[in-house]
Formats: sequence, C-alpha cells, structure tokens
Amino acid sequence: VFDKDTVVVDTSATDSATLLETLISVLNKGGAITMANKKILTGTMENYDRIVAASGVHRLRHESSVGAGTPVCATLLRLLWSGDNVRFIQGAMSGTLGYISSELQKKLPFSEIVRKAKELGYTEPDPRDDLSGMDVARKALILSRMVGIRAEMSDINVVPLYPSKFASLTIEEFMNALPELDDNMAKQVEEADSQGKVLRFVASIDVANKKIEVGFKSVDKTSALGMLSGSDNMVTFETDIYSPNPLVLRGYGAGAEVTAAGCIGDIVELSSMRKN
Amino acid sequence: VFDKDTVVVDTSATDSATLLETLISVLNKGGAITMANKKILTGTMENYDRIVAASGVHRLRHESSVGAGTPVCATLLRLLWSGDNVRFIQGAMSGTLGYISSELQKKLPFSEIVRKAKELGYTEPDPRDDLSGMDVARKALILSRMVGIRAEMSDINVVPLYPSKFASLTIEEFMNALPELDDNMAKQVEEADSQGKVLRFVASIDVANKKIEVGFKSVDKTSALGMLSGSDNMVTFETDIYSPNPLVLRGYGAGAEVTAAGCIGDIVELSSMRKN
Repeated sequence: VFDKDTVVVDTSATDSATLLETLISVLNKGGAITMANKKILTGTMENYDRIVAASGVHRLRHESSVGAGTPVCATLLRLLWSGDNVRFIQGAMSGTLGYISSELQKKLPFSEIVRKAKELGYTEPDPRDDLSGMDVARKALILSRMVGIRAEMSDINVVPLYPSKFASLTIEEFMNALPELDDNMAKQVEEADSQGKVLRFVASIDVANKKIEVGFKSVDKTSALGMLSGSDNMVTFETDIYSPNPLVLRGYGAGAEVTAAGCIGDIVELSSMRKN
Repeated sequence: VFDKDTVVVDTSATDSATLLETLISVLNKGGAITMANKKILTGTMENYDRIVAASGVHRLRHESSVGAGTPVCATLLRLLWSGDNVRFIQGAMSGTLGYISSELQKKLPFSEIVRKAKELGYTEPDPRDDLSGMDVARKALILSRMVGIRAEMSDINVVPLYPSKFASLTIEEFMNALPELDDNMAKQVEEADSQGKVLRFVASIDVANKKIEVGFKSVDKTSALGMLSGSDNMVTFETDIYSPNPLVLRGYGAGAEVTAAGCIGDIVELSSMRKN
C-alpha cells in the first residue's frame, strides 16, 4: 500500500522493532516519513544508519522530534545545506525544566517548585521523567546525529536533577524525599548568581569534540539562554558564520497543536519535493 | 540556455526591467530562482504577481532578501505550510538601526551615535540610506506579501529618523544638522524608559488589518525585542499557535558570508525539490 506518493507520520513514542521495519519498508518503496517520535531516531547507530540509508536526504523529516513545531531541525538542515560548519549547539529543550529554572531564579525551594509544577500538570505524572533529563538527552542525540556525530544514548553525559538513590522510590516517596535536595540546589543558584549567572537545564553539543552534555549549566544572565524565562524552548547554533553571535531560535517546545504544526509543515515539504 | 535544471541567483540590488523579464523567462522555462535582491520583490504588485504566477510555490526562494541567511523566510514558509494563521510579524531588521537603538539606550546623544557609526562603517556612506527606514520597509513588504497582503511600498507607514527637510542636504550638511535632533530623541528615550520600555526600530505587520508600519516603537524591556541588543536582527511571529508567546528568530542580518549562506541554502532546497 505504500509507494512514492506516501508520507507516513509517526506520532507514537515507541521504538518497537515492528514500527522500525515498517518505516524502513515505506522508505524502501520510495515513500517519505515525518516523525514526532524520538525513540526510533535515538535507537542504535546501526538502526539509525539503516533509516538514513533508506531515506536519502529528502524523504525523512522529524521537525517535531525536537522542540515540537519550532523549526529547530529545519534551521539546522539549512545551516548544513549552506555548507556552514556547525561548532556548538546549545538548547533549553524542556518546557518543564525551563519553568523550574525560572522559579529557582526567584530563590524558591526546589521541592516546592516541583510540587507545584506537578500539581499544575507541568510535569509528567512521575516528575522524574522530566527531572532525569532523558527526554532532553534524546533531543540532543537527534541534533548530534544530524550534524554527523556517531553517538549512542549511552555516550551522552546526563546529570539528572536528583541522586540515583531516588530512582527506586515510589512517586510519593520521591516527592517526600525532595526537600533533602533544597539546600544543595539553593547553593548552586546562589553560586551562579554571585558570578552574574543563572542556571539553565541545557543540552550542549560540542561538535568537533563529539561531546554531548545534558544538565544544569551556569550561563551568563545576559546571554540568550540566560535571558530566557518560562517554558519556552530555545536553541542556539554557533557556526563558522554565526560567530561570535549565535543563530537563536525560541518558541513553544511542546503541546499538541505545535507538535501537529511541525508534522504538517514536514508533510508539505516532503510532498513538494516529489510533485514539482 | 535556461531550463528546469537551472537555479539563477540574483544578488544584485536593481529593479531593472531587463532583470525582471530575464527572471520571469527563467521561471517560464521551468528554472528556479533565489534572490538576495529586495528590489524586484518590492516592485509593483502587478510585477510581483507575474513572478509568483511563473514560479509556482516551489521554484522561488529569497531567504537573503530578509535578514540575510537567518532563516526568516524559511520559518515563515513553514508556518504557512503548517496551516497556521500568522497574525503579527514584528522585526528589528537593520543591524545599523539596532546598533543605534542600543547606543540610545545608554543615553548617548543621537548625533554622536550616528557620527561614530558612520566612522566605523556601520552605516551606508550616506547614513540617511539607513535612517530613512526604506531598507527595513522593503523587508517588511516582502514578508507582508508572503503572508498574502496585497500592498505597495507606498502603503507602508514609514517614519524616518530625520525630518523631511533634511532630505535635500548634502551628506556633510546633514551630519552637521544632526545635533538639532538630539533633544527630541533623548526625550523619546526618557519617556520610554519611564514606562519600563525601550525604543527599537521595528517593522510591524498587522496581518488581519493589512497595516504595515516601520519606525521607532516603544517595546517592553523584558520582551524579546526589548532584550535584543547590538546589531543582531530579530523577527517575531505571533500566530494562532504561537500565542501568547511568539516564535522568535535572532541572528546576523547582514554581511557577505551570511548572505551567501542564505543563497546557498536556497539553491540546495530548490535543487532537492527537482531531483527526487
């Protein structure tokens, strides 16, 4: 049923082998794919290579896998197409962790911020799904692979916002244990503040050194990331051309409508490449 | 000599009839065009319609006509492709006027800022070419036409940074007359400051009301445009989906390399649409 006029949209959140093989079969029949799904793109390099080999350059798009419809991937593609050399990518790519960073900047206790964020529905039912940084790490890996870094999820240095001993607790136990982290977190905020900096939960990709880091980072208050507040996502690209000032993109990074818009933009782009 | 494998790059700054007819003939033969040239795209609506009719949707790109390589046009196209409704576009699209705005914010006299900018080569040889706002108006018209507003240059409300009586002066006379403007400019800066605002030289496009305005505008210090400093360009898109927070793009808006990068990105995109 799939042919070269097909565009398949994967809005799932699974890395099932059946899905992977189906997508590859669509590509092999000349069809195109757009993915909001991060899991398939962050599987093994071996499987990633199979997808890219089957898709060529212009039958795979996945705008909504990073920052929803905010055109992070489209912008990065344009930089690559223009022959520019991408040196560093930095991104605040979690609305939840952006909100938490902003609240921390107001010197509120970490445990209270997380509790309130959970109550408001800003976090996943288990806040550790956000605080672990794994979702941000997946986005970082997708961008890293786009610029040619051959890396696995396990190559990313992810520093979660809670100690590993909290991982085995129930959600309730975890929420009750959170105040233990308040003092240390407040100290980090103070230390950054005293240097004119603020904490942001950032994915940093150092392309030349193939180093991918995810976690809290002190950034200058007057930098683009430092001036970011609230849940907006922001990605900055430093390249040979966009240097010293980076190319900066800011917008919603989640939400059904924004995610759908990213997929639809991809569908139109993929279709237009086949009908001209 | 032009056929469907042709991509013509127009990096001129002319609106000559010969050029217009040549470009249309390339399009009519199935070729594609990318333009850094603003003049052709801001001619009469009649000629604009002819270009669009000849190009279809996917054989015309002009990234570098607005904000050089910073993907303002590509981002706007994606918003349109996704079916989103663009309500307002605001842009600081002149590095020179961005620099002047930042210096004014430091409460320096307008005449001294312009003199220094001229000496540093930040302005055109005749600074009125920047201060008139006409270059920004052209960019505003290009974006307006992209979202479907049928407007001519004469429909844009442009407020230059000097009175009309200065238009007939020689460059030297103009530079000598500039201090006459200092007091009024300082007053505007103070007034904005007292309201928590700053002056930015902004193009504002109100899509529903087809209103295009170019000139100094007081914006909140904490808004994206208010936090912009220096010569970077910034464009914000407020849409049905990107609301209340706009989609924001920031980067270099001029320079040979950035402009070339925008053209090359277009060439790759236009080519990929024909070879798949």
